Amino acid sequence: MRGRFITFEGGEGVGKSTQARMLAAALEARGHRPLLTREPGGTPGAEAIRTLLLDPAQSFGPASETLLFAAARADHVAEAIEPALAAGRWVVCDRFLDSTRAYQGGEGGLTDADICTLHAVGSRGLLPDLTLLLSAAPEQVADRLAARDGDNSDRIGGRPADYHRAVAARFAALAAMEPERFRVIEATGSPEEVHARIMAEVEALA
Amino acid sequence: MRGRFITFEGGEGVGKSTQARMLAAALEARGHRPLLTREPGGTPGAEAIRTLLLDPAQSFGPASETLLFAAARADHVAEAIEPALAAGRWVVCDRFLDSTRAYQGGEGGLTDADICTLHAVGSRGLLPDLTLLLSAAPEQVADRLAARDGDNSDRIGGRPADYHRAVAARFAALAAMEPERFRVIEATGSPEEVHARIMAEVEALA
Repeated sequence: MRGRFITFEGGEGVGKSTQARMLAAALEARGHRPLLTREPGGTPGAEAIRTLLLDPAQSFGPASETLLFAAARADHVAEAIEPALAAGRWVVCDRFLDSTRAYQGGEGGLTDADICTLHAVGSRGLLPDLTLLLSAAPEQVADRLAARDGDNSDRIGGRPADYHRAVAARFAALAAMEPERFRVIEATGSPEEVHARIMAEVEALA
Repeated sequence: MRGRFITFEGGEGVGKSTQARMLAAALEARGHRPLLTREPGGTPGAEAIRTLLLDPAQSFGPASETLLFAAARADHVAEAIEPALAAGRWVVCDRFLDSTRAYQGGEGGLTDADICTLHAVGSRGLLPDLTLLLSAAPEQVADRLAARDGDNSDRIGGRPADYHRAVAARFAALAAMEPERFRVIEATGSPEEVHARIMAEVEALA
C-alpha cells in the first residue's frame, strides 16, 4: 500500500521542525517507517540548490528564484519522496509546495497559477494527503526567533516584517481554499500540547 | 528602437563561441552596441547556477536539471537580455532556449511542450529574432574537441556519442519546424568563411 504524505507549513519560528520530528517518532512507533525530510533540500542535488537559494551573497530575479525552488522540489520528489511513498513508507516533510506559493507568490513574483504550473511540469503535481499549517501569534514567534540566535539571517528568513505578515496571510488563504487537505493547527502551548493536536488530525488519515 | 536578439546553437565544438565573438565585433563596428553573452550564465545568479549544472560531482533528476536551466535563463533574460534589448542594444547569445530543447528534451526528460511551458512562465516566452544553427560533420567536431584538451569533460559535454548524435537530430528538427527563425549555417571552412555566411543572414535583419 502506498504511504501517506504529510507536510508542515507556516512562517519562521512556529515550531515546524520540532513538530515534524515528533510526528515522525510517533509514526515510527506505529510501524510506518517514516521518511523525515525538509525543503528546500532532502536530496544531495536539492541541498546544493538550497545552499544557493539561502546564500545572502546570491541574488536572483523573482521568476528565477521560484524556478530554483521548483528545481529543488523536482529532484526531491523524484529521488526521495515518490520512491518512499511507492515503498509504502509515510513521508513527513518540513515545508513543500505551499511554502513556495506563500513566499514566492506575492507581488512582483509569479502568480499562484504559474507556481502550480511549474509544480505540474516538474513534480507531476504531487500534493500531500495532509498539510498541517502551524499558526502562532507574532509575539510568540518573535520570542522563538530571538532564541535561535541569528539562525534567521538567510536570504529569505531575513526579509522585513511586512513580507512575513503577507506570507502568513497567503498561507491562511491557501488553507481556506483547500480545506480538505489543510488543517490549521494552533501552535501555542508546550510542544507536547501542539503534538497532541497534530496526532488528532493524523489519526483520521490512518 | 528595440534591439535585435540573435542566438547561436549547435553541438559542442562547432565554433559557436568564436562566431558569436566575430558577430559581436561586426555589430560593434556598425554601432549596435552589442551585448555578447552566453548560457547557461550571463548574470551572477545564472553563473552560480551554471557552476552547479556543469559540476561532474552533482547529480539531478531530468526534470530538476531542466528547471535549473530555466531558472538560469529567467535570471539572464530579466536582468541582462531584456534590459539590453529595451535600451536598443543588439544581443548575441551563445546558446539559449533551443539548447535546452535539444539537450534536455530527449527520452526520459521533459517533453518539448513542457520545456516551452517553463520558458513561458520563467522568461515570458522570449524568442530570438534569429537563431543561427551551426552544423558540422562529426569528424570535424572530433578534431576541434580533441584540440580543446579536456574542456569537454563537464556533466553534459561528457555524455556519450549517442547522446550527442540525438542532440544534433533534435536541433535539426527544431530548425525544420521554425524556418522563419532558424538559419542552418554550414560550419566548415575557415572561421572567416563561416562568419561571411552568418553576416549574409544578419544583413537581412538590419
